[in-house]
Amino acid sequence: MSKQKKAVVLVSGGLDSATVLAMALKEREQCYTLSFDYGQRHCAELKAAQRLSQLMGATEHRVVSLDLGALGGSALTDASIAVPEHATQGIPITYVPARNTVFLSYALAWAEVLQAEDIFIGVNAVDYSGYPDCRPEYIQAYEKMANLATKAAVEGRSIAIRTPLINLSKAEIIRQGLDLGVDYAMTVSCYQADGQGKACGRCDSCRLRKEGFEKAGVSDPTIYRASR
Amino acid sequence: MSKQKKAVVLVSGGLDSATVLAMALKEREQCYTLSFDYGQRHCAELKAAQRLSQLMGATEHRVVSLDLGALGGSALTDASIAVPEHATQGIPITYVPARNTVFLSYALAWAEVLQAEDIFIGVNAVDYSGYPDCRPEYIQAYEKMANLATKAAVEGRSIAIRTPLINLSKAEIIRQGLDLGVDYAMTVSCYQADGQGKACGRCDSCRLRKEGFEKAGVSDPTIYRASR
Repeated sequence: MSKQKKAVVLVSGGLDSATVLAMALKEREQCYTLSFDYGQRHCAELKAAQRLSQLMGATEHRVVSLDLGALGGSALTDASIAVPEHATQGIPITYVPARNTVFLSYALAWAEVLQAEDIFIGVNAVDYSGYPDCRPEYIQAYEKMANLATKAAVEGRSIAIRTPLINLSKAEIIRQGLDLGVDYAMTVSCYQADGQGKACGRCDSCRLRKEGFEKAGVSDPTIYRASR
Repeated sequence: MSKQKKAVVLVSGGLDSATVLAMALKEREQCYTLSFDYGQRHCAELKAAQRLSQLMGATEHRVVSLDLGALGGSALTDASIAVPEHATQGIPITYVPARNTVFLSYALAWAEVLQAEDIFIGVNAVDYSGYPDCRPEYIQAYEKMANLATKAAVEGRSIAIRTPLINLSKAEIIRQGLDLGVDYAMTVSCYQADGQGKACGRCDSCRLRKEGFEKAGVSDPTIYRASR
């Protein structure tokens, strides 16, 4: 695969997307990273996305502001819904309506402007099986739609939605990321991280991350708040 | 078809989407209208969308601000590209990258929160055949993706993307809209409308609209600027 070609990489600042960025940079010389400010409570993630993009060697990082919170419906964007500290059955309350669809659509717009050939996204169907827009059949349908949506498609160029983590466990993601040199101390996964990016250690996201380091058999570099 | 069910209707303030709103209101009791502020030059359109929503009887109208212009690439959002006054071959320069994909994704998010069953969009494959994201095959692929993307889909409810104008000529759209009582004097189509919504009479959009009224055999209620 040519390293000259461009890719858009969705980078949240979390563990998964930092790993995806490392994987994308191995394949593509020019990676353009895209993050979203959508009223999420953990804005320390965005600072992490910026830092990771710079230090890992992305060509350019952009943050797009989304009005997604205005449409309501998730504990991550609606201040009237509490973030739960324990795993629940079915679709989690932290699910943001159509989030990946909105994210991928902006990535598609930028990919079209840049004439990029891939969009990398760190969705995972193993640990987050409750989210409908993390399933392989969803990603395939999105790719098919994207290849009908754009000028590139009409002109015969195609775009691929790349999901290198989709079938990996958290422990496998961590092992592959460490092999690629990812510094996980720089990533923020906690739904309720404080201004310095310190994690609560209790929410679903913290729990999955902690288990991942345990199962990978490596020490957890996450900085937790003292009060946990 | 039950009138009790909800629909999200994309309303730009132009002729096409005003017609779509009239069609949706005939079928659905509760229509929620959604408009976008994406740095388009013709913001008179947004005021028209608000007025049309209120006067025609939408349940609620929301305007979502989009950062689409920040990603560049179109004469409609990029101030460094001139809006052409004449039709061109191929994909027009007024094409905004992935625009309908981004619009539909927000509509999908709102539809999910509202538990709406349809999204109405005024795309048209006849007069605007240059836009890839106005083609029927694109809409079908989007609908398939949407039905894999959401909580509703997992729970067995489905969502339809409705495009009642897709195969109509501008004259047919106007005739059907007039039958439904649409007041086209309230709509703004011009790419370069002024603050009062007065049209330039020269851009592609004005030209198509003018021809539509001529072919429909009705008088054109559009308010043009004196200087044209």
